Amino acid sequence: MWSALFTPRMVALVGSVGEGRLGYHLLRQMVDGGFPPARLAVVNPKGQGALGVRGYPSVAEIGGPVDLAVVVTPAATVPAVLEECAQAGARAAVVITAGFSEVGNVAGEEAIREVVRRTGIRVVGPNCAGIVNTHHALFPTLETRPPAGSVSLVAQSGAVGGVFLAWAKEHGLGVAKFVSYGNGADLTERDFLEYLAEDPETQVVALYIEEVTEGRDFLRVLADCARRKPVVVIKAGRTEAGRRATLSHTGSMAGADAVYDAALRQCGALRVTTLEEMFDLCLGFTALPPVRGRRVVIVTNSGGPGVLAADRAEEMGLTVAEPSPALRERLFAFLPTYCGLSNPIDLTVEGTEEGYRRTLAAVLEEYDAAVALNIAPAYLDSVPLARGVVQAARESGKPVAAAFLPGPIVAEAVGYLREQGVPNFATGERAVAALARLAEYYATGRSSASLLRALPAPFAVGHEAPRPDSLLEPDLMAWLRAIGIPVPEFRTARTADEAVAGARALGYPVVMKVVSPQILHKSEVGGVLLGIADDEAVRAGFERLAAVAAGRDFRGVVLYPLIRGAQEVLVGLFRDPQFGPVVAFGAGGIYTELLRDVALRVAPVDREEALAMVRETRVAALLAGARGRPPGDMDALADLIARVSELPFRYPDIAEMDLNPVFVLPQGVRVGDVRLIRKESDDSVLSHPVTSL
Amino acid sequence: MWSALFTPRMVALVGSVGEGRLGYHLLRQMVDGGFPPARLAVVNPKGQGALGVRGYPSVAEIGGPVDLAVVVTPAATVPAVLEECAQAGARAAVVITAGFSEVGNVAGEEAIREVVRRTGIRVVGPNCAGIVNTHHALFPTLETRPPAGSVSLVAQSGAVGGVFLAWAKEHGLGVAKFVSYGNGADLTERDFLEYLAEDPETQVVALYIEEVTEGRDFLRVLADCARRKPVVVIKAGRTEAGRRATLSHTGSMAGADAVYDAALRQCGALRVTTLEEMFDLCLGFTALPPVRGRRVVIVTNSGGPGVLAADRAEEMGLTVAEPSPALRERLFAFLPTYCGLSNPIDLTVEGTEEGYRRTLAAVLEEYDAAVALNIAPAYLDSVPLARGVVQAARESGKPVAAAFLPGPIVAEAVGYLREQGVPNFATGERAVAALARLAEYYATGRSSASLLRALPAPFAVGHEAPRPDSLLEPDLMAWLRAIGIPVPEFRTARTADEAVAGARALGYPVVMKVVSPQILHKSEVGGVLLGIADDEAVRAGFERLAAVAAGRDFRGVVLYPLIRGAQEVLVGLFRDPQFGPVVAFGAGGIYTELLRDVALRVAPVDREEALAMVRETRVAALLAGARGRPPGDMDALADLIARVSELPFRYPDIAEMDLNPVFVLPQGVRVGDVRLIRKESDDSVLSHPVTSL
Repeated sequence: MWSALFTPRMVALVGSVGEGRLGYHLLRQMVDGGFPPARLAVVNPKGQGALGVRGYPSVAEIGGPVDLAVVVTPAATVPAVLEECAQAGARAAVVITAGFSEVGNVAGEEAIREVVRRTGIRVVGPNCAGIVNTHHALFPTLETRPPAGSVSLVAQSGAVGGVFLAWAKEHGLGVAKFVSYGNGADLTERDFLEYLAEDPETQVVALYIEEVTEGRDFLRVLADCARRKPVVVIKAGRTEAGRRATLSHTGSMAGADAVYDAALRQCGALRVTTLEEMFDLCLGFTALPPVRGRRVVIVTNSGGPGVLAADRAEEMGLTVAEPSPALRERLFAFLPTYCGLSNPIDLTVEGTEEGYRRTLAAVLEEYDAAVALNIAPAYLDSVPLARGVVQAARESGKPVAAAFLPGPIVAEAVGYLREQGVPNFATGERAVAALARLAEYYATGRSSASLLRALPAPFAVGHEAPRPDSLLEPDLMAWLRAIGIPVPEFRTARTADEAVAGARALGYPVVMKVVSPQILHKSEVGGVLLGIADDEAVRAGFERLAAVAAGRDFRGVVLYPLIRGAQEVLVGLFRDPQFGPVVAFGAGGIYTELLRDVALRVAPVDREEALAMVRETRVAALLAGARGRPPGDMDALADLIARVSELPFRYPDIAEMDLNPVFVLPQGVRVGDVRLIRKESDDSVLSHPVTSL
Repeated sequence: MWSALFTPRMVALVGSVGEGRLGYHLLRQMVDGGFPPARLAVVNPKGQGALGVRGYPSVAEIGGPVDLAVVVTPAATVPAVLEECAQAGARAAVVITAGFSEVGNVAGEEAIREVVRRTGIRVVGPNCAGIVNTHHALFPTLETRPPAGSVSLVAQSGAVGGVFLAWAKEHGLGVAKFVSYGNGADLTERDFLEYLAEDPETQVVALYIEEVTEGRDFLRVLADCARRKPVVVIKAGRTEAGRRATLSHTGSMAGADAVYDAALRQCGALRVTTLEEMFDLCLGFTALPPVRGRRVVIVTNSGGPGVLAADRAEEMGLTVAEPSPALRERLFAFLPTYCGLSNPIDLTVEGTEEGYRRTLAAVLEEYDAAVALNIAPAYLDSVPLARGVVQAARESGKPVAAAFLPGPIVAEAVGYLREQGVPNFATGERAVAALARLAEYYATGRSSASLLRALPAPFAVGHEAPRPDSLLEPDLMAWLRAIGIPVPEFRTARTADEAVAGARALGYPVVMKVVSPQILHKSEVGGVLLGIADDEAVRAGFERLAAVAAGRDFRGVVLYPLIRGAQEVLVGLFRDPQFGPVVAFGAGGIYTELLRDVALRVAPVDREEALAMVRETRVAALLAGARGRPPGDMDALADLIARVSELPFRYPDIAEMDLNPVFVLPQGVRVGDVRLIRKESDDSVLSHPVTSL
């Protein structure tokens, strides 16, 4: 099927090719793109051909082996056309025609799927902008024909592809394949990612998606592709509607987009938010050698733009370090005295071919990458400067990104740079931004192993305990303990005497909380008592809590030892509609909402990934032992996060769970409070924190 | 002087005009720009003219009234040339020549200043790229000649101006004046801001600076200009070296760039970080009516780019709300059924002139601004769509930003949009980003009153107390109390008996801290005891603290009542090298460093501005009464911040001060700890917090 789609021997365009019609434009693109007219055929009732391509009244009459059909007939006819194409031997079809599920015509789209199932023909579209394979001179698309190269773009939206391909042509970015899959009635982003992962002509994959179906499958395929080649992703459409309404902190704070963000990173994909970033990264990946570090040097002929690039570089996590004294001395030996020898290195408007070449050659021995800026006034011939840059890039073998501007003045020099394989970026800022993402990519490697390993594996379930019958705090705590999650010792008590006995057993001071299925917000009704110091206080407290529950279903109290000197964190779980269980880590207690500093992962995670989550948050600094506190037990915390991340698979009825606070001690961790929401209903017990003092 | 500079009757170019020389390029620019050759003169030893402009051996020999001299002679000759020009009656000079302070030739620059002082001639430069006044056909610059309009650009860096002006020409942004002032030996950004504030031809000011001198003067001039017209500022150069090494939290966290950020906002200027943002904002200000709200609608002919624009709009604080049912019904009445009627409104690739016009006209009755997106495939004629957009924009009178792309395909349509006064942005994302900043500008008005009012006013000093003699905690606390800053009650004690008496007077429980000029980090040596409950514990505690101080200068202890139920915040002061005293507000205690969520203002501030600072931080949510806590006393807090912000003016030897924590109670505030660093030396007492429980 893939060869039929991307390297067809014979292509039939089915539809009208009257001048001005969509079919005419498509045929024109294919003919102008260099596909041999003899291997093209047009099919429409009148058998009308065009542009030197022969017309037939039906696909069957073409006679030869038609691999690919490009369909632009009215929506109502498409299923029958596909049927006919399949019977004539076509194994793939691109359906440009719109008017299906995107306008509510679900039946029409289902009819397409039915033909696919029955005949085996595979379909791109409907409602799409077509495909491209530059290496086969195949351009059945309405978008700009880009030059050949090694970037492949998969875009749900045809127009996004159109912009990208137009830029590719304008700025000389080489494209291998392009697919706009529109409604994705049959083939979707998953199929194309699978194909491009193996495609030898594709070195970099660019993916534009608005939503995915089969979230876990998508992640598996994406991770698999990203392990083989860079995948740059735009996930658009972070609408209100996409956000989940939920009671839990974790869920409400995360939002669907944050989950996408985490999931894409877990797969090793590079997420960007604008088409410009996507374009720049593709340019960088294809035109630059690997960026093996974060030390970048900026060589410029003008101060201001150099400073702007340096600012952006530091913002993006690159290091704009000063040259070493030895390097400075080398530069001083051959550069005029008016040059600025810090970083950026300013050759001034007097900068020459030789100046750029020698300077870049010298600095690239010390730095990991360079940006060569040239802000040209109209009287300056920039081609010699471009030659200097090209030579230095070639000699050093290190990444050199050019930013020659403004466009109209440097057009010839930029053309030369491009021919010679040095990418030119729109501004110095965009050049360093691309370098920063490339450095990040080459530094982290493709570490999507965690998700991939964990997903298919059977979970090592030790002491499986039945799911809790009640969502009351003591029952949840008991359940957590039974499944190996560390909770503090606790006692329940129905009477004041039992409470005193419990408190003595735990040791003073203790914390005491009311237990009632009818009290959700214990703190707010005075249902949590802290730092109770003796028997007398326990009795008084018991009476107070009983009074708090007066008129409600009072189930007694639960007592805990008071935990001191701990850092409070949150470990949570919720289900994302696309990706299923997600595990969260962040600051606990009142700071959960204040900081909104939560790391997410599609669950499950192993301990290593759990540690990475902790390190992502600012709370990591506190856990490391800020202000003279002892450091928290990171091993125990990672273990807890990993265990929690497996629970939704062992207990499929868990919808959401917050462990908040979790006390991180110098040795061990303890769950301070738990709230659980079941899938079937929204009945929940919201219990409140044991405060750490 | 300003008329001599910007509307000279006669201009003398002093320097060689041999072909290929800088003087030649400058003369060519002036002649090509349309300045009458008869009002130009060239001066050089040989009296050689060029390009139809007559040459003279000296300025004096020109005979007529020379207003402006443009100087490109070698650096060593510049002071004498200026002298000669001044004597010949020139009141202004633009010195293009480089080779002064930027390469260490400080004496040369001082010689220029000496001529200025003595003769009264005013100088732009040296080491600059010249000036432009499009409305006088005056182009003594090396940069691109832009079309005439109402944006004026002041740039320390000539090349930044070069890029901006080249874009202005490429995209049809009209420019009034341009000044590159290079080393700013005489005239600086302050002078130009003052001039442009009054210049009737300038509607928008764009300013690129790397550093300013006379920080407070600069702010005054900037605020004054920003009250009259929009000022878009790039402040570049946030280098390590620019950051202050300091012991205080506030200072170390802030960094010079954060102070610039606060100061620019206080002045009502719009700070941007890239040239593209600056360009887009200038385009928006000059070509769009005021954006009077945040409700934006996106009308598009393609899904993906519309979604990307919507995402960016929400990120930037705009509201991309759905159309009302009534509006939807109106649209449904005339749009084809396949159109998407949410927001973005998708006319699909079938979108027509009429579709754009009627849709935009209808939606603009409900929304504050619109973006008209057109992603054109090559076969589509976009000019009719541009007509539809232009008509709707004209009829509605509301802001309509176009984003027609990609460039090569829509060139003609974009030209039409421009002619008709509808600005076109490079992408939908950039269009909404500009709209968002415009909406922010028109919403806040020019509220720089606070800084302006406070600066010149004499401070209402009530009970002026002498500055503290010692930086020991009790002495600082006593001083704070004396000057009206609320501190908790406290007692000092030299003996255990005194400590018991003090604790009883305060009421149990108390907090007790060691006092010693030799103990800086009290907590870390066990020098702070919390929650002391009775006499016995006081005696035991006193012994412990005495032991802690053993072998050091033990000055006894200080006792405070234990403060409960308060929110801890930080109020700080430090001195910025550019702008002087800066006041800071943020989260207190250990969260100061964790959150790094600090609001800054150039001091002093009034209570209103102080409240705005609080609202800027995330800690505001906690102060509002999160999780059932009572809200904190905002009036008292604002009062504290305002009082603290005046202290550096009353006590000029305060270099830095941290009040951290400050306890914000339901009624009132109390300073929990104070650290003060004096200007003369770095001797300081670092005392540690009274923890709130």
